[in-house]
Amino acid sequence: MSVSQRIAVTAGEPAGIGPDIVLMLALKKLPAIPVAVADPELLKERARRLRLRVDLRPDTGHANKHKAGTLYYHHVPLAAPVKPGLLDKANAHYVLETLKTAASGCRRGDYAAIVTAPVHKSIINDAGIPFSGHTEYLAGLAGGGYPVMMLAAKRLRVALVTTHLPLREVSAAITEERLTRTLSVLNEDLRTRFHIRKPVIAVTGLNPHAGEGGHLGDEEQRVIIPVLERMRKQKIRVEGPFAADTLFTPKRLKPFDAVLAMYHDQGLPVLKHVGFGEAVNITLGLPIIRTSVDHGTALDVAGTRKADPGSLIEAFLMAAKLAKKK
Amino acid sequence: MSVSQRIAVTAGEPAGIGPDIVLMLALKKLPAIPVAVADPELLKERARRLRLRVDLRPDTGHANKHKAGTLYYHHVPLAAPVKPGLLDKANAHYVLETLKTAASGCRRGDYAAIVTAPVHKSIINDAGIPFSGHTEYLAGLAGGGYPVMMLAAKRLRVALVTTHLPLREVSAAITEERLTRTLSVLNEDLRTRFHIRKPVIAVTGLNPHAGEGGHLGDEEQRVIIPVLERMRKQKIRVEGPFAADTLFTPKRLKPFDAVLAMYHDQGLPVLKHVGFGEAVNITLGLPIIRTSVDHGTALDVAGTRKADPGSLIEAFLMAAKLAKKK
Repeated sequence: MSVSQRIAVTAGEPAGIGPDIVLMLALKKLPAIPVAVADPELLKERARRLRLRVDLRPDTGHANKHKAGTLYYHHVPLAAPVKPGLLDKANAHYVLETLKTAASGCRRGDYAAIVTAPVHKSIINDAGIPFSGHTEYLAGLAGGGYPVMMLAAKRLRVALVTTHLPLREVSAAITEERLTRTLSVLNEDLRTRFHIRKPVIAVTGLNPHAGEGGHLGDEEQRVIIPVLERMRKQKIRVEGPFAADTLFTPKRLKPFDAVLAMYHDQGLPVLKHVGFGEAVNITLGLPIIRTSVDHGTALDVAGTRKADPGSLIEAFLMAAKLAKKK
Repeated sequence: MSVSQRIAVTAGEPAGIGPDIVLMLALKKLPAIPVAVADPELLKERARRLRLRVDLRPDTGHANKHKAGTLYYHHVPLAAPVKPGLLDKANAHYVLETLKTAASGCRRGDYAAIVTAPVHKSIINDAGIPFSGHTEYLAGLAGGGYPVMMLAAKRLRVALVTTHLPLREVSAAITEERLTRTLSVLNEDLRTRFHIRKPVIAVTGLNPHAGEGGHLGDEEQRVIIPVLERMRKQKIRVEGPFAADTLFTPKRLKPFDAVLAMYHDQGLPVLKHVGFGEAVNITLGLPIIRTSVDHGTALDVAGTRKADPGSLIEAFLMAAKLAKKK
């Protein structure tokens, strides 16, 4: 009998819906074994509150496959008791500890991938810890690589050159090096993880109308076009830079396996519109595989049964798929 | 018998699909009389090329209603002969002259509104003329007012605080004054032109996740939130600032009559995805009513019968609707 892969699932911000949706995930039939990285007391309390029958067990590494209703956990202790909906910076280090635990388990080979429930960035920052997002943080833990954030819906994949950066810093961050590395990672991971033999990538411009031939900004001429020309010489199939506002129609997107957008709010509103509830956040370019939900901590519905585990389930299924060797 | 309104339709870049779609518009049944502002020789030549039977007549102001297949024109002479698909900066002044003619006709009361076919900005700039877009240019001709660009699809309206500006200049352009004026115009025009009694407006943040409580940029705290608070005191119903990436789902958008986005590529990719082929560009805040197509000059299909007049027809119908007194 073949043994299923084990996938670490970090429960994220304890006052948010993370624990809720991790419990709901465990109730489903799944093609791999989820291991919750969290405080089991938090999970037990939340299960009682939600009236969910989940059999919580310490992970010994001996399970062969997932059984709906059973959830193995890797114990990371909370620093302070949790009230759903109420952020407490005392638990900021706990949240980061779950990520560290999952990442080191992944590097050791205990887990085939990591799936992350949402964290609340500002409470981590308020605790005095610089933290701009999972993607960037996990890069530091993964042992090398160049992280690239991609969101994938069924009909659209969008990767980003810059992610959680104030808008006014975006232009200076679009350098030849960053764009080249991002495109290389995207091309490589589309080949090796998504098993697309010859990926074709659409690249947006930075400015409105992709700079309108240099009349609305010069980053296209200075940085983007030269990089795309060099990549084409290396037989990497990139097209653009395209005006972002007219690129996202089914007809225009048809030839492309992914879109590379220059920044967060250029690519994600349309991706999340297209794929809401099914979009998965994937970190490319790292030695470990990591996927995530595409929503936030939803503090207002934590502990109420109103949270929708759809995105976490999709993220888990995507992680299982990406982790599979072809 | 009641007399239909007359609406000026500028044919835009003569080497693009503008003349094609203006001719196609004239073949439809329409609730107002289109008057093409263009060189009639260009229209005749294009009609021959497309094998369209359009009866072109000089506008004398005496028509009572539109007859499908008839197109009145206001003669603006070309500077150089036109080959479809081939830009020529010799005709840049001609293009601007059609806008001036339409705007002054509108101010005199000859036309109830202006509908514009696409122009090619970079060829106008190459001719040494500063021109950042119809919206800004018409503001100068309209005699006052504060132009605000809105795109409207059937299920979504998005207005912009900044429009055709290099991305790196956007942050500095989000001032209290500009945001206040834009919101006032949007609120007022939703009331008076769209006949929404108490409009509710969703406002995006400037930064990713609307600045994440000040951790990803400070424009929300410094500018946007204070302006929204002041507007609420004046009983203007504005909500936000919202993270742009999660705002554009049907459920989130339901309570709102319009979204105000901070810049071009934050609001328009999703709007054009939602409304492609039916989205209309509307200039708010001016003493004249102006609508436009949501696409470009499509030089590659000019003169080939492949152009789709759908967006121009929608723009014309919208202009007729907005021009109607309630």
